[in-house]
Amino acid sequence: MEKYKIIEIKESIFADNDREADRIRAGLKAEKTFLLNLMSSPGSGKTTTLLRTIEALEKDLRIGVMEADIDSDVDAAAIAKIGVRSIQLHTGGMCHLDAGMTEQGLRELGTADLDLVVLENVGNLVCPAEFDTGAVKNAMILSVPEGHDKPLKYPLIFTVCDVLLINKIDVLPWFDFDLEKVREYAHMRNPRLQIFPVSARTGEGMSAWTDWLRTQVEAWTKA
Amino acid sequence: MEKYKIIEIKESIFADNDREADRIRAGLKAEKTFLLNLMSSPGSGKTTTLLRTIEALEKDLRIGVMEADIDSDVDAAAIAKIGVRSIQLHTGGMCHLDAGMTEQGLRELGTADLDLVVLENVGNLVCPAEFDTGAVKNAMILSVPEGHDKPLKYPLIFTVCDVLLINKIDVLPWFDFDLEKVREYAHMRNPRLQIFPVSARTGEGMSAWTDWLRTQVEAWTKA
Repeated sequence: MEKYKIIEIKESIFADNDREADRIRAGLKAEKTFLLNLMSSPGSGKTTTLLRTIEALEKDLRIGVMEADIDSDVDAAAIAKIGVRSIQLHTGGMCHLDAGMTEQGLRELGTADLDLVVLENVGNLVCPAEFDTGAVKNAMILSVPEGHDKPLKYPLIFTVCDVLLINKIDVLPWFDFDLEKVREYAHMRNPRLQIFPVSARTGEGMSAWTDWLRTQVEAWTKA
Repeated sequence: MEKYKIIEIKESIFADNDREADRIRAGLKAEKTFLLNLMSSPGSGKTTTLLRTIEALEKDLRIGVMEADIDSDVDAAAIAKIGVRSIQLHTGGMCHLDAGMTEQGLRELGTADLDLVVLENVGNLVCPAEFDTGAVKNAMILSVPEGHDKPLKYPLIFTVCDVLLINKIDVLPWFDFDLEKVREYAHMRNPRLQIFPVSARTGEGMSAWTDWLRTQVEAWTKA
């Protein structure tokens, strides 16, 4: 017998978000714009990764960014500083974006002249995973200091993502983080998950990720 | 003019959670049990900090633990292993616990013979902060790798907490983390916030935190 009890606490859920998300994707397809939904915990390096990703792709692609946050604008400020079109979405305390909220952002940003829009979702491994935003692909970042057990504890986000960036590999020597274990756990959740170990700070591994993303955008916008 | 727009996205909110939380606190007071609500991002070291905290206090206090998680039970297993009474609360995908959910947990755990109950909340800096669980004090952990800008980006949790543990200070040399800046930002949100820099891994700084907690529990259970 276990030494602790397991209690299931439930709550009811959502409406017609999925249909709205499909409508957004169809609109983006028509105007040849790729939307990437980027998710992670707070502090895993989303904004730094995004800055490095833009540097690698901005010669080839016209890029826009939507930063979602509870109420600060430090991330949009960082993106605007490098001259990329960006908007800050304030969720008013909410922990995620749904398709309707994403659409408001896309409309404000203006997407007709963009090849790639990145939505930097609220820092959170739970709520953002529950909502299809209308993105063409979902990416998530797990950073080395967070630990390799996270696919066990936050299963849904690993299931709904197409790509997992394992960030901050430059600090691997100082943490008990097992790269093989995290691959194993993540692939238990999602066998098709693409995994790229990277360091956004040093640049290590970043080209494999940006090459993958470039290929995805080209397939979407040219097909 | 800013180079990016700020858009306020809103949603309606909750019912009578605060009254329920007050009722829970009154019940705990009557039976001389202190409830600590421990919050943080995924991977900031909640469970390790809790294990070290229990080691320091278990001679003086009778302790129980409620682990809240989406659907794993690795944390309750870790706590049960050291012989402490614990239960795992599964939130069924929800990102927080409210007072009603906490009360279900307290009832299952049984609190009459306990001095201190720790609720390890879901790993998340947004949703848990929105709900009074009925705890006597709220504590949060921010770990060095997450960055010192988090009080700017997740203001509410810093506002509602009584204590901030800055964990993983053993890896300070390898991160751009400014301890003075995080103190400044956190105190902007909450001037009365108690801040303890610690390393749950090495034990550094932990006694200041556990002394503080012991004093709080004694004040609550003896007054």
